[in-house]
Amino acid sequence: MEWITNAAGRNIPARIEGRACVPFAGTAADPLGEIRRQASVLRSVPKRGAANKLVLSWDELFDRLAIHDGATISFHHHLRDGDAIVLEVVRRLAARGVRNLTLAPSALFSVHEALIPFIRQGVIAKIEGSMYGAIGKACSQGLMPNTCILRSHGGRQRAIQEGDLRIDVAFIAAPCADAFGNANGLYGKSACGPLGYPKPDSEHARTVVVITDNLVPYPCTPWAIEGGHVDYVLEVESIGDPAKIVSGSTRLTRSPTQLLIADLTARFIEAAGIMKEGFSFQAGAGGISLAATVALAARMRTAGIHASFAHGGATKVMVDLLKEGLLGTIIDLQSFDLDAVRSCAENPNHIPSDPFVSYGPRSACCVANMLDVAILGATEIDLDFNVNTVTHSDGILQHGIGGHSDAAASAKCTIITAPSFRKRIPIVREHVTTLTCPGEIVDVLVTERGIAINPRREDLLDRVRSSGLPLVTMEQLYRDIIAITGMPEPPRFGDRIVALIEWRDGSVLDVVRNVADLE
Amino acid sequence: MEWITNAAGRNIPARIEGRACVPFAGTAADPLGEIRRQASVLRSVPKRGAANKLVLSWDELFDRLAIHDGATISFHHHLRDGDAIVLEVVRRLAARGVRNLTLAPSALFSVHEALIPFIRQGVIAKIEGSMYGAIGKACSQGLMPNTCILRSHGGRQRAIQEGDLRIDVAFIAAPCADAFGNANGLYGKSACGPLGYPKPDSEHARTVVVITDNLVPYPCTPWAIEGGHVDYVLEVESIGDPAKIVSGSTRLTRSPTQLLIADLTARFIEAAGIMKEGFSFQAGAGGISLAATVALAARMRTAGIHASFAHGGATKVMVDLLKEGLLGTIIDLQSFDLDAVRSCAENPNHIPSDPFVSYGPRSACCVANMLDVAILGATEIDLDFNVNTVTHSDGILQHGIGGHSDAAASAKCTIITAPSFRKRIPIVREHVTTLTCPGEIVDVLVTERGIAINPRREDLLDRVRSSGLPLVTMEQLYRDIIAITGMPEPPRFGDRIVALIEWRDGSVLDVVRNVADLE
Repeated sequence: MEWITNAAGRNIPARIEGRACVPFAGTAADPLGEIRRQASVLRSVPKRGAANKLVLSWDELFDRLAIHDGATISFHHHLRDGDAIVLEVVRRLAARGVRNLTLAPSALFSVHEALIPFIRQGVIAKIEGSMYGAIGKACSQGLMPNTCILRSHGGRQRAIQEGDLRIDVAFIAAPCADAFGNANGLYGKSACGPLGYPKPDSEHARTVVVITDNLVPYPCTPWAIEGGHVDYVLEVESIGDPAKIVSGSTRLTRSPTQLLIADLTARFIEAAGIMKEGFSFQAGAGGISLAATVALAARMRTAGIHASFAHGGATKVMVDLLKEGLLGTIIDLQSFDLDAVRSCAENPNHIPSDPFVSYGPRSACCVANMLDVAILGATEIDLDFNVNTVTHSDGILQHGIGGHSDAAASAKCTIITAPSFRKRIPIVREHVTTLTCPGEIVDVLVTERGIAINPRREDLLDRVRSSGLPLVTMEQLYRDIIAITGMPEPPRFGDRIVALIEWRDGSVLDVVRNVADLE
Repeated sequence: MEWITNAAGRNIPARIEGRACVPFAGTAADPLGEIRRQASVLRSVPKRGAANKLVLSWDELFDRLAIHDGATISFHHHLRDGDAIVLEVVRRLAARGVRNLTLAPSALFSVHEALIPFIRQGVIAKIEGSMYGAIGKACSQGLMPNTCILRSHGGRQRAIQEGDLRIDVAFIAAPCADAFGNANGLYGKSACGPLGYPKPDSEHARTVVVITDNLVPYPCTPWAIEGGHVDYVLEVESIGDPAKIVSGSTRLTRSPTQLLIADLTARFIEAAGIMKEGFSFQAGAGGISLAATVALAARMRTAGIHASFAHGGATKVMVDLLKEGLLGTIIDLQSFDLDAVRSCAENPNHIPSDPFVSYGPRSACCVANMLDVAILGATEIDLDFNVNTVTHSDGILQHGIGGHSDAAASAKCTIITAPSFRKRIPIVREHVTTLTCPGEIVDVLVTERGIAINPRREDLLDRVRSSGLPLVTMEQLYRDIIAITGMPEPPRFGDRIVALIEWRDGSVLDVVRNVADLE
């Protein structure tokens, strides 16, 4: 195998499975150069008056689809751990004898552990999409014969738009749909809020199926998915377990470490002058992110400052700030709790988004480009501020990239929040085990032991130098942490590449190797 | 020149200006055959943090755009006779010495008569788009050296999507926009309601400019035009004359002939069993269409019947029916009066649409496919039910195709309403002067002298035979009318083809020739 060292200093294969790998050339590089033209799929118009696309059963659907061995099928993850559709489709295709499928979900969760037998049987040969928990581990075990691909939300949208990821059939689970295929996630027992992740699938897949447990009269509006992109509609009893689709409400952390990090983050944002009238921010639904949003809101309230918008996954915390008037707008790619789902349906200032709008690498700027600050997580970060979001230090795949690298590449200030160690495993490393976000676009690390600012951002350093915040260098942090935790065991990698980490533009940033002797 | 006779019996050139003409092959033909892939334009991401796309003046804009001789520039017609942007852009390009432009507006109106000097000077060499009034006449005079192209709303969207119409710069006049390029037509002094016509332009043009007289803070929502598709934003004093963008309110006709035709139309729809609970219809903003909507509503009220939706240009008449509950939803491609604009902004059941959603020939069904009945107009109709919407019997181009052929091709029943003659010129002809919609998809003609049903629709004939409605054959109507009006002068055509009439799929349905000695 021929190897290339890319601009991030990582070794990547020159070719894999017959296709050439484009090496990552830096976050400012534009591998497209000039504007270019690309392929998207057109569907033909059914005969006059044939606008009712309902199929009456799974069997009729699969008879019509005639999915072949080696096909690529896609799914979205708005239903998260409540999803019932991925497994149902794979099970039925397996029963029909279909093999060597490529699954292209926007993400798979713990509930999809039930796919592992189908991986072992050769029904699933490859996954292009985020893999959480057990599915990630199965990938690290090398259970799939083909090399998987991990992309960010924006990277996935780009790959579909540009034809790198060609989808034969997109299966779109929809909480609300009509017989024409118009669909949204706002209403019904399985309501999930926005239904944006499958939008690129609906626009570019060869065939598009909407599966709903809430068939409503035409027209189902607003149409997050446009019926003009949909070929078939199947009504089922249930698309998932509502209790696991969204949590009833998002719980706030009580961990003193997390609360300390959140407080330092908010203080940093204020001290650096980022928190000013009309600013904007992104923060996720993790413990630290939620607490940081609460801490930031308290400072905004005191200072009489309002944010123009917040972006990202929406939660009750954000919805309350919107109601209070501290936030002008929520731009929401994914609702995480019932309050956010309701708000998205009812509040005209709670705007559902999609991956092109939020993160599109080929858009003429995306929403993330408008962000003053993004608060993001990490499994590891290293001395060069390189970030890992997908593997742990044991090398085992456990998480996806999500919107992480999209937000980091676009926001004016990118803050990573993390405890300095987890279960006596250091988070700050000399080199990250897997690279998902280059340090050149990561500006700040906030831990409970202090705040490290990327030396590239002298402007930020100048602004907070006399703020009284506990500033540290990454080297100092690293030494302090290692002194406590000791050096962790290196991963026991095998010699197979089980997954590629793609940068947003489709170039290869890093590889994930199989982990030997994994049970 | 080599000629081909197409499936509608019209002679079209085999080639024109170096490109081969695909002959129309019938409304049920699918020239694509299988799904095919096509080109669309990708724009590159500006540098990090460069999300403010404001240019400060027209000059800065044109310096950046560097529009070259022979470029194709596009516009939309939501501002109708109030539009100030088309002329402003052309005037400035002319001053910069640019020549041989192709204009690709969705339509041009009387106000654009001021473009004629620029046509004469060679600044504009070709128009691909609907031409009303004086601009149509200029085309018929042969003032443009290149052959113009007339397409339906859906046909234009398809041509842009498929790359037949490649736009260098799309100029999108927006009643409401932010500095990122998100835009809608709902708010501001120039509010026009939906802003759907330029959506395909925004998605596929090489460069996209939003021009607004109402710059609002980010994010401008809802985003009819997504900022991710926009390269530059220019703020101007005024994008047009609000008084001519929409009429204050739509006036109802008092013409006894129009009222009689409207009444017959409504009676036919009821007698044919089309007016049943949950049915849907399309009717435009013309005198007969509005009156027919009022007449149909009266019958619905009496019978206790509700329509699921109405499609098309929206008017106060429709808005009142929506408020009354006789209509479940309005799907609106273009608001015609202030009541419709307000309703579109305020009523969640008044849904703004776009040409792909409403009429897309390559969509997997469009909204028009869901219609039970479409009520459409015509300048001429012939013994084979072929329709002309663009020229008068003197051969002079005066109108566009609009959504006419899209609706006719898609709705379950297509009704043409027209007086039997206008200014002693018969509307029923042996052969239409110009063919814009093949008779095979036209089901009914309603005139003040009776209702003619296409013999292909025996089912409709059976249903209304004993209804007491004045049924006539097209031949009988033709003879009666000619007996009154006499045979009109044939057009004095010259030997140049000044425009092609494209069918929705891009094939050539007919040609328009220059009219000799036209002043």
